[in-house]
Amino acid sequence: MSILSKIQGPEDVKKLSKQDLKILADEIRGEIISVTSKNGGHVGPNLGVVELCIALHRVFSTPKDKIVFDVSHQSYVHKLLTGRNGEKFKKLRQTGGYCGFCNRAESEHDAFGAGHAGTALSAALGLAAARDMLGGDENVIAVLGDAALTNGISFEALNNIESTTKKFILVLNDNKMSISKNVGALSKYFNDLITNPIYTRLYSDMSSFLKKSAVGRSVKKFGSKVMSETKDFLMEASSMFEKYGLRYLGPIDGHNIEQLEMYLNFCKNSPEPVILHIVTEKGRGLPCALKNPEKFHGASPYNVITGENTEHPDPTIPLYQDAMGKTLLKIARKDSTVVGITAAMSAGTGLCHIKKELPEQFFDVGIAEEHAAVFSAGLAARGIKPVAAIYSSFMQRAVDCAMHDVCLQNLPVTFCMDRAGLSAQDGATHHGLFDIAMLRCLPNATIMQPSNEDELADMLYTSVYSGKPCFIRYPRGKGEGVKMKEFPQKLEIGKAEVLSEGGDVAIWALGNMVSVAKKVAEILKEKGISAGVVNARFVKPLDENLLREQFGKAKIVATLEDHSVRGGFGSAVSEFASENNIATHIEIIGWKDEFIPHGSSVGVLREMYGLTPEAVAQKIELALKNAK
Amino acid sequence: MSILSKIQGPEDVKKLSKQDLKILADEIRGEIISVTSKNGGHVGPNLGVVELCIALHRVFSTPKDKIVFDVSHQSYVHKLLTGRNGEKFKKLRQTGGYCGFCNRAESEHDAFGAGHAGTALSAALGLAAARDMLGGDENVIAVLGDAALTNGISFEALNNIESTTKKFILVLNDNKMSISKNVGALSKYFNDLITNPIYTRLYSDMSSFLKKSAVGRSVKKFGSKVMSETKDFLMEASSMFEKYGLRYLGPIDGHNIEQLEMYLNFCKNSPEPVILHIVTEKGRGLPCALKNPEKFHGASPYNVITGENTEHPDPTIPLYQDAMGKTLLKIARKDSTVVGITAAMSAGTGLCHIKKELPEQFFDVGIAEEHAAVFSAGLAARGIKPVAAIYSSFMQRAVDCAMHDVCLQNLPVTFCMDRAGLSAQDGATHHGLFDIAMLRCLPNATIMQPSNEDELADMLYTSVYSGKPCFIRYPRGKGEGVKMKEFPQKLEIGKAEVLSEGGDVAIWALGNMVSVAKKVAEILKEKGISAGVVNARFVKPLDENLLREQFGKAKIVATLEDHSVRGGFGSAVSEFASENNIATHIEIIGWKDEFIPHGSSVGVLREMYGLTPEAVAQKIELALKNAK
Repeated sequence: MSILSKIQGPEDVKKLSKQDLKILADEIRGEIISVTSKNGGHVGPNLGVVELCIALHRVFSTPKDKIVFDVSHQSYVHKLLTGRNGEKFKKLRQTGGYCGFCNRAESEHDAFGAGHAGTALSAALGLAAARDMLGGDENVIAVLGDAALTNGISFEALNNIESTTKKFILVLNDNKMSISKNVGALSKYFNDLITNPIYTRLYSDMSSFLKKSAVGRSVKKFGSKVMSETKDFLMEASSMFEKYGLRYLGPIDGHNIEQLEMYLNFCKNSPEPVILHIVTEKGRGLPCALKNPEKFHGASPYNVITGENTEHPDPTIPLYQDAMGKTLLKIARKDSTVVGITAAMSAGTGLCHIKKELPEQFFDVGIAEEHAAVFSAGLAARGIKPVAAIYSSFMQRAVDCAMHDVCLQNLPVTFCMDRAGLSAQDGATHHGLFDIAMLRCLPNATIMQPSNEDELADMLYTSVYSGKPCFIRYPRGKGEGVKMKEFPQKLEIGKAEVLSEGGDVAIWALGNMVSVAKKVAEILKEKGISAGVVNARFVKPLDENLLREQFGKAKIVATLEDHSVRGGFGSAVSEFASENNIATHIEIIGWKDEFIPHGSSVGVLREMYGLTPEAVAQKIELALKNAK
Repeated sequence: MSILSKIQGPEDVKKLSKQDLKILADEIRGEIISVTSKNGGHVGPNLGVVELCIALHRVFSTPKDKIVFDVSHQSYVHKLLTGRNGEKFKKLRQTGGYCGFCNRAESEHDAFGAGHAGTALSAALGLAAARDMLGGDENVIAVLGDAALTNGISFEALNNIESTTKKFILVLNDNKMSISKNVGALSKYFNDLITNPIYTRLYSDMSSFLKKSAVGRSVKKFGSKVMSETKDFLMEASSMFEKYGLRYLGPIDGHNIEQLEMYLNFCKNSPEPVILHIVTEKGRGLPCALKNPEKFHGASPYNVITGENTEHPDPTIPLYQDAMGKTLLKIARKDSTVVGITAAMSAGTGLCHIKKELPEQFFDVGIAEEHAAVFSAGLAARGIKPVAAIYSSFMQRAVDCAMHDVCLQNLPVTFCMDRAGLSAQDGATHHGLFDIAMLRCLPNATIMQPSNEDELADMLYTSVYSGKPCFIRYPRGKGEGVKMKEFPQKLEIGKAEVLSEGGDVAIWALGNMVSVAKKVAEILKEKGISAGVVNARFVKPLDENLLREQFGKAKIVATLEDHSVRGGFGSAVSEFASENNIATHIEIIGWKDEFIPHGSSVGVLREMYGLTPEAVAQKIELALKNAK
């Protein structure tokens, strides 16, 4: 029986011997590799924090103590150590299994949920301030990757630590690699730190000192001793964080459990907020992940030995992200004023293509969606044609920038919102179900969604040369398999496409739901119901002429979208009908007004939520009956 | 004839003698005081940057060179120097006059528009990157107040300067006072810097050095000279910014034009990005503003001598902000787990009341709306009842946090969104016309708007003890003058209030539009049209039972809201009708889908956009005709 299988909760981790901890770490790595190689997931980040999480659960006691993981994609080890080893872990990121992120509803050991970067410090600071007010004595520990420091919220929080609490621990997990290769000045700063020759000496000095000292009473003495011994290095190392009132410790080896425990115990007894800088290796224990850390940040199912993907989607059908990225490259080759901007997602957004061939027309700004949007607006104000590729759910971060910096100033920035609609296995934090609602209210905005990858290319081309703020949303995953033109062509903005006519119902489908609508029409036809299908293309402006015409013809209109039913495309059509004094019944079909959980696939979730062709056909049939 | 009156543009500023510049500065202060004392506006910030703006326009040449002002509330001097002195300046912030912020549509000298804090660095960096790509040689200068550094976007941009461009100037205008008293670790850091005794010596050293040197060629020599001479001080001073690859200069006196010109010329020739740290006095030249910098940050019309407000609204009618703030204080007195959180707006949001009496139940986090929201979520996760008071238009910054940190985790945070609806004189950046659209899509959210100040108190009380994420929106300015209860009482969530019944039209009015609706009903009555009025109270959840009932009774339903017609309350009602197979005509009345400019008053803008009782009555009359 393995050691891991005997771990029912953190108290069991505390009982283990030094020797057993090493075995436990190996077993955890084995389990994570076993599960992620089948289910996909955040492999590298979790393999990097095995020892850290073991040490955290030996030094601290959750759920009383609060550990807040930034993004929390690195929480698998934490889950295994807090009673979540077992069948539901084997179904990680699948329907019925655990979520790939921390989730307050899943376990009392998850002090705060996440999925987007940069929130851990703020949330942990809230927990700490509440503890202080309520007279509690628990510890609050925020665990951040180095990439979290490229995000502005982390700095807003840093600026508030000193004035908020005296008891606060920040563990900075530095793996010199965020999602893409880390960018920016801070990343350079950390690299300089850990390659400084004084680091090695200081590291052994500190360790021996800590071994000799009684932790707690000696904190102040320790501080002054180290300060005098290694003044220059520590001044450099701490200068960044001492401004924020944080005592700086490190950098130390994040794979040495004993060392980690020693330092964490020291932090636990610190009379002031403290930052512990640890250095880890992303993907540790899995050679293919070490070799290709970006791919194994968030991986599809893979072969454990070769690292190759074991899911083989039809290679002739491109992913939407690649259709976008390759088209952008084509356009950018012809026009040197066209540039791509990513917030640390060059591979996921397909901007890797332009990055590779035309690096001078590419910007990676780090996990900084707001800066990405405003920077793009600045570029546009000086005649550049920026294409900012930001996942739909992360675009929520830049809604104010879209309003204040882009639409209000009517600057021609194109936003490519990948992962619009479901991001099945990643769950609620990553589904892109709200972008239309949040952006549709913005004057000057053009919002569109292509029904296939070739239309995406056309929309990109249209947007780049439209001279307007444009938002293109499209789903995760592969396209429809249509033939792609050699070079995209312009579409008429605000013009929908009639695919078929029908007297009973006109189905206005948006984007990837057009293919669903076609199947719905077939199902309805078999039942003797005549359904027409329109590829809506534009959410804003709507094709008002066509809408008017179609409202006159069909008995009811149904809208179909991969978006919440609140404030989305259907809502826009409904508004239009109200404004135009149209009494035709409108059936708004989309994702219901709930947070949609993770699931094994988009198909599974569509089944659960009534968005399969069969379910949609049924809804329309019922609506037709009611409308009579 | 004054010197100011002869300034047609920046080239005229360049021609003036040292003596004349002093006179110009005085004249500009006079003009700003004259205009703002009548129109209100950002008095203090502009009086503080008179010399800076003069120096900027002597050293640089707009529109070729690009000056980007953060927030741009301090752009009045810049406007006066760039051909905008005259009648339209006298009407500043009034209908027909200039906007109180930079505006690309207003002048080619406004390189980028703003109104919200923290965007200048990102936008300027975009302008600089575009210049580099296009082979331009213009200078790009970002002018930031110290408070802009409490905002995360500034740090996202800082992190990207070094990797983006070599030619970039950041002027940090340090007045030790953002809107409220500056908070946080960075503010302390700057204060320590400028009170350092080495500062005085260094300052004179640098000045004499610069006088002797030929600017440009000596840049490197200067750097090394100063570094060796004043190593310790500069290490401290620059440690913050050198991490970001910025050469640090300063702090220098921001009221000495000659010095400023010298340093700015030095910056202009710097071969690397540079930060010039200047120290200014907010409100300089206006004793009452110096005495009360918070009041004179953004002031109502005032008496120049006494500083007293010259507009005297009925003192018996409280402002909405005070109704909120005083009610919160009442609740917090009885319940020590109730706290108020502001993002640098304690007076504007009415949190000044709790700040004064119960400072331990109050947090000011700086201009950091995202942190404010996530911090609140953290507090709520540990049993505190947070009330985050954030203006509607600034809440746009925290939309993702509202989704990811509050609603998804279903944490009981109350957001008080003041300035929802028009913020007349401040214009498009400050109107709160999109909050419903952006938040209505969030599952678990409760959204409401009171029809008067007493109902606001009830809604606050209801929200704080609801155990749910709640968003209360209410307008700028005074309440309806209703009698306020001693202590608020709970409302039933999702319950609207029928004020009167009518057979022709049911007007569902939201918040401050209820009083308009009552007048509309009277006007319609005179025309023989029977109109009922409902105080909707809740946008989410809607009072579906009452809606169903009313849809059956009236010939048409009209919705009336102080929000965009896109995605707002009317849209919600329209969706409801679609979902419930209701064919009654719905007339959605609100602000049209355009950016609404600034205007002399809410009344003036309502007249321009058809939202007076008369105009609304007309719309309803027409809709009734069309519906027949």
